[in-house]
Amino acid sequence: MTRSCTWVHFLWDTDERTVNRYLTRSADPPSRYRILDVVPVVGAPPVAPSGGMCGLRYETTVPPSSLAPGGPDHPRPIMHVWGVAQHLHYTDRHARVDLDTRSRHELPPSEQTIAVLIPIRKSAAWWGLSQDERQEFFLNKAGREGHIAIGSRYVEGISRRLYHRRYLDQAAPYDFLTYFEFDRLDEPRFRMLLSELRDVRNNPEWVYVEHEYEIWMTKVG
Amino acid sequence: MTRSCTWVHFLWDTDERTVNRYLTRSADPPSRYRILDVVPVVGAPPVAPSGGMCGLRYETTVPPSSLAPGGPDHPRPIMHVWGVAQHLHYTDRHARVDLDTRSRHELPPSEQTIAVLIPIRKSAAWWGLSQDERQEFFLNKAGREGHIAIGSRYVEGISRRLYHRRYLDQAAPYDFLTYFEFDRLDEPRFRMLLSELRDVRNNPEWVYVEHEYEIWMTKVG
Repeated sequence: MTRSCTWVHFLWDTDERTVNRYLTRSADPPSRYRILDVVPVVGAPPVAPSGGMCGLRYETTVPPSSLAPGGPDHPRPIMHVWGVAQHLHYTDRHARVDLDTRSRHELPPSEQTIAVLIPIRKSAAWWGLSQDERQEFFLNKAGREGHIAIGSRYVEGISRRLYHRRYLDQAAPYDFLTYFEFDRLDEPRFRMLLSELRDVRNNPEWVYVEHEYEIWMTKVG
Repeated sequence: MTRSCTWVHFLWDTDERTVNRYLTRSADPPSRYRILDVVPVVGAPPVAPSGGMCGLRYETTVPPSSLAPGGPDHPRPIMHVWGVAQHLHYTDRHARVDLDTRSRHELPPSEQTIAVLIPIRKSAAWWGLSQDERQEFFLNKAGREGHIAIGSRYVEGISRRLYHRRYLDQAAPYDFLTYFEFDRLDEPRFRMLLSELRDVRNNPEWVYVEHEYEIWMTKVG
């Protein structure tokens, strides 16, 4: 009856003490960040772009409902996004074996290590599609590459993790969190990956994105 | 940014006052039940089979983390299972249109109306399969019908709803709740449906079920 649910939490604040209060919640050693920029893509980010905030990522097997409430003696971080790791919903066996073989692991902390977190919400029209219709968008078909083939060309240099938020609570302003890490030298390639995924001729899935922004960070610890 | 998450809660207790405390949480009129039997299928149910308990089902847009804690003045119900409605993960457009056209709606409360709730947990091996491998089990292939085709033969007489629990909390002892309603006269057909879904020659998906039990009820209100 062992279950293996892992939740991820990202917290940011201008005051490092506020994020440090969450250090003990981490099952594994947490990661630390310094925000470089918050970049709107579709719609506005929930906070004004603000460089310099410090951030923390931790993973835990404790459900998020137990995140302590804020208060004068226990201020909540300025930004907090979270999600849960799930099985892959669109990747077939062949593509998964290929990804497992070639995918880059997370990078060590360094001034050279860039991390980008991208919360994404898709439209009601997307969620109203049936499984085969959604699946189609991930495949190489009808003269365009689709999500999986585009991403596949970048997995060696750019580490990627996916978390889910949809159906976890009512207020969730995003359905997914995609988290990337890469060496600063690979930033042009990462920007190319984003540009390709947002080209609706080659990846029509992106038509259904109704909210998206990027949180650019240095992974410092 | 309107979201439409719906959680379902089923509560049972020997004392009707305990379940009645939850009446005000229901977004729509709740349903009331009397338990007929709790039947083990794979593994043991979490409570001893006990007829006569009263039950309540309510749907809500409030996340389950706010379910009030118990206490001497506010006893928790003896049994409480819950889940969230999601999009369909394996049904293609053609099958969905067919289901939407033919599926039976819920039945009015009556001594004639039987409701059966079936919590199901699948094995780690199931969740380790890729999307295409899981999808295969639902389809009519390789000389066997599979889940969708079997279920399709019963939808006119038997109402069915599916809720998810996996990834909502760590302790979840089940991945899904399937909820059925039918007229007492259709009980033999319902038993045939269960028997067909559990015949691993015709529905090999069922090999992956590692915990399952049935809660048989009369829908009285």
